Order: sequence, then C-alpha cells, then structure tokens
Amino acid sequence: MRMYDIINKKKLGKALSEDEIRFFIDGYVNGDVPDYQASALCMAIYFNGMTDRETAFLTFAIRDSGERIAFPGIEGVRVDKHSTGGVGDKTSLVVAPVVAALGVKVAKISGRGLGHTGGTVDKLESIRGMRCDLSKAELERVVNDKGIAIVGQNANLAPADKKLYALRDVTATVDSMPLIASSIMGKKLALDDHCIVLDVKCGSGSFMKTPEKSRELARLMVDIGKAAGRKMLALITDMDCPLGNAVGNSLEVIEAINTLRGNGPEDFTELCVTLASHMLALADYGDYEDCENRVKRVLADGSALEKFVDMTEGQGGDVSWIRNVDKFPKAKYSCSVTSSQSGFIYAMDAEGYGTASLMLGAGRNRIEDKIDYTAGLILNKKPGDKVEKGEIIATLYSSAVKDFGASAEKILLSTTISDAAPEKRPLVWDVIR
Amino acid sequence: MRMYDIINKKKLGKALSEDEIRFFIDGYVNGDVPDYQASALCMAIYFNGMTDRETAFLTFAIRDSGERIAFPGIEGVRVDKHSTGGVGDKTSLVVAPVVAALGVKVAKISGRGLGHTGGTVDKLESIRGMRCDLSKAELERVVNDKGIAIVGQNANLAPADKKLYALRDVTATVDSMPLIASSIMGKKLALDDHCIVLDVKCGSGSFMKTPEKSRELARLMVDIGKAAGRKMLALITDMDCPLGNAVGNSLEVIEAINTLRGNGPEDFTELCVTLASHMLALADYGDYEDCENRVKRVLADGSALEKFVDMTEGQGGDVSWIRNVDKFPKAKYSCSVTSSQSGFIYAMDAEGYGTASLMLGAGRNRIEDKIDYTAGLILNKKPGDKVEKGEIIATLYSSAVKDFGASAEKILLSTTISDAAPEKRPLVWDVIR
Repeated sequence: MRMYDIINKKKLGKALSEDEIRFFIDGYVNGDVPDYQASALCMAIYFNGMTDRETAFLTFAIRDSGERIAFPGIEGVRVDKHSTGGVGDKTSLVVAPVVAALGVKVAKISGRGLGHTGGTVDKLESIRGMRCDLSKAELERVVNDKGIAIVGQNANLAPADKKLYALRDVTATVDSMPLIASSIMGKKLALDDHCIVLDVKCGSGSFMKTPEKSRELARLMVDIGKAAGRKMLALITDMDCPLGNAVGNSLEVIEAINTLRGNGPEDFTELCVTLASHMLALADYGDYEDCENRVKRVLADGSALEKFVDMTEGQGGDVSWIRNVDKFPKAKYSCSVTSSQSGFIYAMDAEGYGTASLMLGAGRNRIEDKIDYTAGLILNKKPGDKVEKGEIIATLYSSAVKDFGASAEKILLSTTISDAAPEKRPLVWDVIR
Repeated sequence: MRMYDIINKKKLGKALSEDEIRFFIDGYVNGDVPDYQASALCMAIYFNGMTDRETAFLTFAIRDSGERIAFPGIEGVRVDKHSTGGVGDKTSLVVAPVVAALGVKVAKISGRGLGHTGGTVDKLESIRGMRCDLSKAELERVVNDKGIAIVGQNANLAPADKKLYALRDVTATVDSMPLIASSIMGKKLALDDHCIVLDVKCGSGSFMKTPEKSRELARLMVDIGKAAGRKMLALITDMDCPLGNAVGNSLEVIEAINTLRGNGPEDFTELCVTLASHMLALADYGDYEDCENRVKRVLADGSALEKFVDMTEGQGGDVSWIRNVDKFPKAKYSCSVTSSQSGFIYAMDAEGYGTASLMLGAGRNRIEDKIDYTAGLILNKKPGDKVEKGEIIATLYSSAVKDFGASAEKILLSTTISDAAPEKRPLVWDVIR
C-alpha cells in the first residue's frame, strides 16, 4: 500500500477502504507518512468529502491511535457531554453538577482553550487550589466519592487527532465535515462512557454557519457513536452571539455558580436545563419531562450548587470561593464600550467577541501562552435589546492589558445596531437522535 | 502575508494575486513555506484551477526563482523546441541538426529521463565520448563554431520547479493544467531564446489523454510565452503508441541517425519534418511550405546528418559511431515477444511500452539509478498492422536484465489485438499559434 495511491484515489473522488484509512492514520502517527502527504489528503477530503462509512473508519482509526480509557472502578451510568465550541460556553460547569446531583456519574475529561473559544479546564483552574491534573486513580476515587470530577487530558488520548488537527490548522483544512466529525468522535470514543450528548453549535461563532450544516455534522457524529455502541443524542444550538453574559475564565465560573443558584442569564439557563434533561433521559432516568422537572428542582433547591461544591472539594479547590464569589480576584483594569447610536442590538458576532476576550488576556494565541483569569467581558446587552446612544454595550476587564483600544474597537465592529429588532433566533434548533 | 490565507483563498476558489504567488514560490524556495503547506496549495489548485493570469504569474515566479541564461555571445536567431514527453520521442536528435543545417542557432538545454519517458541527454551520452556537461562559455563557443549543441542542465535553472515537481510527484498533484504549464514554461523562459515550438503530446502515453485537454494546455503555454516576448507555436501530436520503432537510449540514437539519412520510420520522419518546418517558419525563414521543402532537402542531401556529426565533434563524441552505427555496443541479451493470436494491432499503450523499457534498464526509477544504454525495445509492428499468431510484435534488449518475463508480460498487457484494423489516428492533431 502506498500513501500516493491513497491520496490519488481520494483526489479522484473514490471511497477509501478501512485498510487504506488505517494505513494513513497509523503511518501518520508513527512518522512513516510525512506531513506533506497528510495535508494533500486532507485537502482532497475537503473537496471530495467522505462517505459515512469512511468517516466512521477514520474515527475508529483515530480512536485506536492511542490509549483507551475505561473506568471499571466507577459504579453507575456515565454520561459525557461535548460541545463543538463556542464563546461564553460554560455549560459543562452547570450541567455536570446538575446531572451528578441526580445520580449520574460524571468523569469528564475536558480541553483547554485555544484561539477565540475558552476551555473548561482553564475556567475551573481560576478557582484557588483547583487541581485538574488528577491521575486516573485519583479521578476514579473522586468520582466514586463525590459523583463528579472534571479534569484535563494527560493520557495519550487519540494522538492522531492531536497531530492531524495541528496540521489542518495551518493548511486551511479544518472546515471539512468528515474531518471535524472524526476529530471530535475519535477523542470521545477513546473514553468508555455509556451515553454521549453532543451540543453542536450553529451560527457565526462556530464552524457550521447554518442549521442545515450543523444538522449534517450532528447526524454523522450520532451515527458514528451508535456504531461504536454508545447511546447518542445531539442538540443543535445557537452560537450566533455569546452564550450568557460572561466571557472569560473567572467571569464565566461566577456566572455558572449564579446559574446553579437559579440566578443565571435566561438563554444560558435554558440551554443548561435542556442539555441536562436530555443527558438524564438518555441515561434512562425517565422521560424528558420528568427529567426536566428534576433538573429544575436541583437548581431550585441548591443541591446542584452543592454538587459543584463537592467537586471543588474533591479536586482540592477552595470551596469558600464557591460559597462567596466575591472572593474571586477582580481585574485591575476595566473599560465600558458604549453605543454610538440608538436602536436595537441586531447582532453580536460571537467570534468577534471571543477574539476581543482573547486580546484582553483571557485566552491563548499559542499553547504556551499564560492566561489572565480575571480578563474577559460582560455583556450589558444582548441581541433584541433596545440601546440608547451612549449606553453601555459591554464592559471589558483585564489585569494584563491596560490599553483597551483594540479590543473595544473589535467589540464595536462585531456589534450591529439597527432600527428594528431582529427576529428572535431559537436557542435550540433541533434534536438529533 | 500568510501562507495559510493563500491556501484558504485558493481553496475557496478565488484568484491569487501576483504578490501572493511570489510569496508562495519565493518562500518555498528559501524554506519559509514548508512542504505541507505547498502540497495543500497544489491540491487546492488541482481542484479549483487557476486563471490564465494566475498561471502566468506562477510561471514568471518559477522562472525568476533561479538563474536566467542569455547568450549574448551567440549570433543569429535561436529557436528552442520542447516536448511534453513521450515514449520513443527522439525528435530533438533530428530537428535540432535539421534546423541548424539551415542556419538557425540551436543552444539546447535538455533533461534526463525519469520514469517511463527517456531524456535527450541520456540518449546523446550513449555516443562514446559525448560530453553534455559543457560550461556556458563552452556551449557558446560550440554553438558559434558548429551552429548547434545540446547539453544537460547544470545551471541553477528554476529551482522552484525542481522542488515543487518533486513534491507534486509524491502528493498526486502532477496532473493539474496550471501546474504543468507553469512548470514547463517556467524552465523554458529562464533561457533567453527568440522562438519556442512546443510539442504537446496527446494520448495514453502523456498527461493529456484527449486532444481537447492538450489544446487547452498548449493554448495556455503559447499565451504565457507570448506574454514573455517569445514567438510561440505549439503542435498537438499523438502519443497513443510509441513514436517510431525504437525505445531506449542507443537504439533511439541509431534510429535518429537513420532518419537523418532519410531511412527513418514513417511516423517519426513526418513528425520531425513538421516540427522542423514550423521552427524555421516561426524564425522567419519563409512560409511553411518553403520551410518544409528546405527541411526535406537537408534530409535528402545529407547536410542534416553532417550537422549531427558537427555537433558530436563539438561535444567531444566519437564521430565514427555516427558514420557507422554498427559501432554502438549491442545488448548482451534479447528476447522476441510474439503474438498469441492473429488479427490487427489495435493499440500499443505508450506508457506500458515505456515502462517495459524502463524495466529492461533503459531508464531510471530514481535519480541515482544508472542507465544501460543498450537496453530498450524495437517494435516490429505498429497500430494498424496485420499480425499472425506467433509473429514477432517487439524485440526486447538488455545487458542488465537476463530474465525478460516481466517486461515481455508488460508488452503483451500493453498491446491490444483486434479483428478489424483501428481507425488511423492523425500524427498532428492541431497547430496552436
């Protein structure tokens, strides 16, 4: 078998066999297939696509490229949740304790942020003392003890994806449906969970700009997961503007804690309730309405918040910060961005807001960058809101950046103000089973 | 400027600017642009093509990536001829002395063979003593003295093409019209000739399988040459079966010498006369018919052969070999391939015959391979000929290979025998001006 022939076959629009796909992935991980052949193949895949079978083969080859993690020591049903990434997306911080409060076991391995989207692990680490580098044994112990733990990836999970994603990132081949689906599911399937709920974003702040494309991606991933024996469900949710009001690490943790207290922003609370209810229903905790009622109850009676406290304690974090969010350090500098005209907020481009937050120090341009946990922004308005000239649209925070000029300009460029209110976009576009 | 954006722009089907194309080529030659980005761009070009303007910019960037050679020391009109490569294509060995015999100056830089097509320089070096590594000063002296010299490339001509071609060769991106055109013309335009006649092959043994595709490639190259101030003309010629009867280095030189004596195969002689006549006409030696008459005269009166002798003498070769071709060493081993059925030769796949010759030792699989000058094959039949069961189709020669099984099988697999004679294919499909 020759890599040349595999590239040529895909270039001519033919379907690759399972053996050919494994030859590529195994060869790429062990160094036999050079980057320049892998990037040529990715570009050919961008143009000619892959059949669902090919995408599944690619996913399984990526999954099998590294360690596979099972949790024989954890009792009970485990449900994982994955979001395709968005701006202000702190749902894991809420839905994980919510479902854990209802008896589902959550042993979650999350990512760090890169570019304009944040990472759950970075957010958690803004809590004093919080450890996200637990060993597998520690993770199992905490999950058995507290029912929940969220840690970073330190195992050698799906190294093929890590290498391939880095290559796609510099060769303009990220935005290919089969490559996105296999990248996400290859990592997810390396963990031996029972159920997976996917939150597939749709809109300006995500890879998939339209509901149709998002549905297609969701369908693909759901089917691959089922083929691997998982119970699967995907929500198509809106990511045209930032989710909730807070963007930035400790700002988002505070918003999540407020949401667990029942004082969260409307859109964000609704999404968390929907996601958590589907996770429970998928794990056979009752029909969707039952599950929704239970979710609302644990949010109202404080038991979801107590589960967040349990998790913090289990991972060595300072629980007094959770009980009193005023203990989170505040940014040294802040700046209000005001509207130059009156009207309605028509759009707030999520990617633009994410980039502004990144510029303030809340994220990483490169893997080795250090994060300013206090940095980020709070939206004072959301699409559909009325705004007067001179009124504050958003407040920017940073301890790393004093000059807010560039990020304020980015916010203004990413905000559209119109005479009439925009049509309201649904928060959940669709459910794919 | 970022290579990522250039790849992405082409991926989205947009035209690249001259600056972007130069950024790519200059960066690729100096190492700033890595192979994996270059191969991704080549694949995007394969799918989305290039406008004629983009292809011209790419050609000029390739031309300017290395030395440019002028011949201020050579007097008179210089005409170059380039073939897109074929099997048994020894036309340069005939047309160069023919036009030189009529006063055109030929300072030709030719290539070596790689894969299933042979190279003019390798063929010439099968003559004892023949030097093709002349310095530029030697080349000028020989051309002024004898009117003709054919040498190999030792200057740093179009290094971008060398690097890019090697990459395309292993990433399945060779067969892209703008990449082929810019590769050929980038090298040709690095030489300061006055006129260029292109021989664009068409058929199974060439990149372009149909006359339409060959016309398109020819049109593109002719227009680029004109934009660079050259007088241009392209012939679309058939390469569905090997040209002439001989394939292999010394076998082809002997056939060329016989052709210069007026005893060449019909198809090959016709192509040489046509090419040489167009070269002369383009160089203002009269109208096409005049030129054709002169070409036939120098072939008939021996002056074209004398020019070949002059060239051999100028480059240190043993002219007694030209006067008496029996002096060329013969292969140690030979083998006749006979027909297993009676009928008509319907097709002889040029690429298959070229590969068989390569297997006999006549060519190189890799650049460092050594050539067996005696190796190759002689066709006893050509398409359209009647053949009886047991009659010889071709004779194979080698001093390097004793076992002819694999190459004989290749010949049989590449030969189609039918009950009826095939329609005759034209030798020259079209002339593009």
